[in-house]
Amino acid sequence: MPQYNNVSVVKKANVYFEGNVTSRTVIFADGTKVTLGIMLPGEYEFGTAQKEIMDIQAGELSVLLPGGDEWLDIAEPTKFEVPANSSFKLKVKTVTDYICSYLD
Amino acid sequence: MPQYNNVSVVKKANVYFEGNVTSRTVIFADGTKVTLGIMLPGEYEFGTAQKEIMDIQAGELSVLLPGGDEWLDIAEPTKFEVPANSSFKLKVKTVTDYICSYLD
Repeated sequence: MPQYNNVSVVKKANVYFEGNVTSRTVIFADGTKVTLGIMLPGEYEFGTAQKEIMDIQAGELSVLLPGGDEWLDIAEPTKFEVPANSSFKLKVKTVTDYICSYLD
Repeated sequence: MPQYNNVSVVKKANVYFEGNVTSRTVIFADGTKVTLGIMLPGEYEFGTAQKEIMDIQAGELSVLLPGGDEWLDIAEPTKFEVPANSSFKLKVKTVTDYICSYLD
């Protein structure tokens, strides 16, 4: 199975929306990181600090990107990008397994 | 924050009970592994193949161990052990963040 090698993993989970969104932080040797996350069905709004790439490994959802006026339907496997210092909304339809990468 | 170093992490999540229990597999250099998991409130029954140690990092729950006739209340931080080839039941009261270790 695809995996990250030679990484560090933070033991404690990141917990949002009463546990309906949770993730684990994976840190690479160069200090960059990704989070591996799960979203249960529901509607969520997230803010970004850095630019983010959301890589959907499993799940069906719709996304409203910053400044967008149209919900985009998304099914695995796909990626979408969110600018830094912005916010985006998600309607998650089925249990969604994602990888979020943070870019400068 | 406490973390595992020099490990591999499987990208895809392990998903149980319609996403109410999910975990990520962390593999050490010697081939042993742990899973870092989240359980949302609910009642669950799990079977074991290997002996398991459940380390509760956050959360409140009760456990009925194999062969037990009494539910034990558990709050973080605590550990409990489950024999191989058995099953145990959990009543999870609050979002629970756990580390499960598998022993031979």
